[in-house]
Amino acid sequence: MTPNPQLTDTGALRHLLTIEGLSAKLIHSILDTAESFVSVGEREVKKVPLLRGKSIFNLFFEASTRTRTTFEIAAKRLSADVVNLNVSASSQSKGETLLDTVDNLSAMGADMFVVRHAQSGAAHFIARHVAPHIHVVNAGDGRHAHPTQGLLDMFTIRRFKKDFTQLRVAVVGDVMHSRVARSEIHALTTLGVPEVRVIAPRTLLPKGVESLGVHVFNDMRAGLKDVDVVMMLRLQNERMSGPFLPSAQEYFKYYGLTADKLKLAKPDAIVMHPGPMNRGVEIDSSVADGGQAVILPQVTFGIAVRMAVMSMLAGA
Amino acid sequence: MTPNPQLTDTGALRHLLTIEGLSAKLIHSILDTAESFVSVGEREVKKVPLLRGKSIFNLFFEASTRTRTTFEIAAKRLSADVVNLNVSASSQSKGETLLDTVDNLSAMGADMFVVRHAQSGAAHFIARHVAPHIHVVNAGDGRHAHPTQGLLDMFTIRRFKKDFTQLRVAVVGDVMHSRVARSEIHALTTLGVPEVRVIAPRTLLPKGVESLGVHVFNDMRAGLKDVDVVMMLRLQNERMSGPFLPSAQEYFKYYGLTADKLKLAKPDAIVMHPGPMNRGVEIDSSVADGGQAVILPQVTFGIAVRMAVMSMLAGA
Amino acid sequence: MTPNPQLTDTGALRHLLTIEGLSAKLIHSILDTAESFVSVGEREVKKVPLLRGKSIFNLFFEASTRTRTTFEIAAKRLSADVVNLNVSASSQSKGETLLDTVDNLSAMGADMFVVRHAQSGAAHFIARHVAPHIHVVNAGDGRHAHPTQGLLDMFTIRRFKKDFTQLRVAVVGDVMHSRVARSEIHALTTLGVPEVRVIAPRTLLPKGVESLGVHVFNDMRAGLKDVDVVMMLRLQNERMSGPFLPSAQEYFKYYGLTADKLKLAKPDAIVMHPGPMNRGVEIDSSVADGGQAVILPQVTFGIAVRMAVMSMLAGA
Repeated sequence: MTPNPQLTDTGALRHLLTIEGLSAKLIHSILDTAESFVSVGEREVKKVPLLRGKSIFNLFFEASTRTRTTFEIAAKRLSADVVNLNVSASSQSKGETLLDTVDNLSAMGADMFVVRHAQSGAAHFIARHVAPHIHVVNAGDGRHAHPTQGLLDMFTIRRFKKDFTQLRVAVVGDVMHSRVARSEIHALTTLGVPEVRVIAPRTLLPKGVESLGVHVFNDMRAGLKDVDVVMMLRLQNERMSGPFLPSAQEYFKYYGLTADKLKLAKPDAIVMHPGPMNRGVEIDSSVADGGQAVILPQVTFGIAVRMAVMSMLAGA
Repeated sequence: MTPNPQLTDTGALRHLLTIEGLSAKLIHSILDTAESFVSVGEREVKKVPLLRGKSIFNLFFEASTRTRTTFEIAAKRLSADVVNLNVSASSQSKGETLLDTVDNLSAMGADMFVVRHAQSGAAHFIARHVAPHIHVVNAGDGRHAHPTQGLLDMFTIRRFKKDFTQLRVAVVGDVMHSRVARSEIHALTTLGVPEVRVIAPRTLLPKGVESLGVHVFNDMRAGLKDVDVVMMLRLQNERMSGPFLPSAQEYFKYYGLTADKLKLAKPDAIVMHPGPMNRGVEIDSSVADGGQAVILPQVTFGIAVRMAVMSMLAGA
Repeated sequence: MTPNPQLTDTGALRHLLTIEGLSAKLIHSILDTAESFVSVGEREVKKVPLLRGKSIFNLFFEASTRTRTTFEIAAKRLSADVVNLNVSASSQSKGETLLDTVDNLSAMGADMFVVRHAQSGAAHFIARHVAPHIHVVNAGDGRHAHPTQGLLDMFTIRRFKKDFTQLRVAVVGDVMHSRVARSEIHALTTLGVPEVRVIAPRTLLPKGVESLGVHVFNDMRAGLKDVDVVMMLRLQNERMSGPFLPSAQEYFKYYGLTADKLKLAKPDAIVMHPGPMNRGVEIDSSVADGGQAVILPQVTFGIAVRMAVMSMLAGA
């Protein structure tokens, strides 16, 4: 068995690249650490000195103001020095290789790279390359993984539903192109959720998705029946018409979450969305703004989870 | 009477959206607070811990490096954590609504939004929406208001002229398209300036401008006669020819401030400009760089005024 | 003799504009100061309070994420407040003059400007204009100078070779368009290197380069013979074909540093490059990643040298 590249010899977290291969115990310990950071965000002075004097690089090869902002805030609340690098506009265009860029920033004294890249595997590639004292956090790589999103989703479910082992969870939407879906499914199955469903049209389901341990539904009404948690996925604009789907309107009709469809879930089911939402495409505003939505708590917990991951990786 | 949305029940500042509706007393208390921050900018260590651990978002839906920079510096000197968001390039393009963006940043633990937007009313709209502990500063909305500019102008006048109630002030230029002009006029009349003049060609005057309590002059020489303060406005490039004006050269001839025209004002009149200046269009270099100009002190005081506003809104 | 604009009356550093005119003693004192900062970069908490509360503006009229990042990191490790300004996208496009921009930022309380500009002399121009308490660092101006690059190169040579007065050094590549080459040559001759060679095709050599005190070689093999230090230059993409060179491949054949050509230098010769590298154009990967390359130490030392310069200019 190949050792997990994101763990040290003693099983501690060295990088966070993917949820796949993390133990339930380790995931719970990240979530436990995040609990302590939720209160930091509620203080007058939202700052702890855990990463003071550390240099963290937000290395974004793909633009994402929202995700970059969450990591920037988390790092600043840990008192780290943060440098934002939008790399498409920079050295890459001068022909420097990805590894030369990473080597250069490492030589500047980087302690951590937060990496967003359009190519699956980019964060792993960087993690394999860097010196042992440098840590890598995958902030989304192609269709592969977005582990901090998966962890903040688990944090949210644990907060609202307590026990993972009694839940029925549905992941709804464009599973095929979603790194978020992959990270969620790995986390849910690892944490012992007995029934994970995916709900999507055939054209938006990856082949062999059942091998991940999920039940597939093409009919949303059937799939939502009696679930405890509804995890909506974002529909990328470029999928809203063309080979995958006839139109955004058509998609909403069959796979948009409306109050009417939500009634099929358990009465106390929670509704999640990784944002940004397409209101009227994958989710109706009445649901997004309704009493069962926990979409904004997800954002709040996301800061705490990112603080937890960063401090576990690079804290003293 | 509708309560002023920018004040708390006890009349304290909750948001700064417009100068309209602020009392002379409140304006003077902002200027008094700013006085104490002028000295901070002159120290070896230009920093006070008043907003340590606060998260301030520069939410710019319209690019303005200069204004963003002044708020960024002011926030950093108050020891806040600042995140710059140029939103046009981000989630808005992914179809997220303005309020979803604001809700998300609020959920990340925002304490304050500094908002620049091309649409009049945007800052009010956000202020009405956010939770009570979050503060909004309008950094310019459409043609409506730019209250920190208005306040720093008042600070400058008070510094150089002491008593507002003995002054004759002229606001010169493109009043119609200028949020700065609106903020200045509201501030001047509130602070008891007995004679506020606006000087502009008819095509650059809004209808009914007299209802703001100003005297209108189309002839610059007549308008400048015996004034104590000349407040120049910037002419936007897009107005320099076309339906409003024949050309920039023509504009300069009639409405550009030259040493010759300035002689019509009082000998100790001060000349102000909100920047960036179009030298040779609305102002001649001999005046811009001359002894009566207080254009650079305006910039210095602008930092102090923004520190005052931010600390009054979000300080402990 | 005109006094050196970058020195105070007592010979201390007031600005860093060019290496030309700096004494060997002053250069060594910068390098000595940098030595103390190398260890800061190796600490758990990579931060010293020398510039706390100072406002440093990265004023980049020409995009360069890499150089901007090194100054940003250096400033943050000195605890300064840093504001990044990419000026092409801002006031300059609104017609404001360079000096108006500088005056405005000065009025905001700037302590230091780090200036990158496409025009030679821009940093000097700004330095002549600012008030005495404001410091200017040239981060590259046109083809003229890039003094912190030159200094970090000297730091690197001193670390690995100790004594400048016994060395044979070759500068290889596009000398004509390179501000780095100019800064390197001035530094090497000032520090007493007895033999400085430049190696380049005739089309990439400035006229009269010999007057700088260098020996010119058009044949790379002859030029590399028995040198202690090989300083490669970056070939700008726009030079890789057209009037100066037939093609990148052709260039590599004659002027690319390969393991084979490097054997002509002394066995313990070191290889330097200012980055970003064009692998396979000016340097072969086997050399760039080989045991004689000190390209990444250059980057590390670059942070320490910039911390040294900034603290010598603006420290208490």
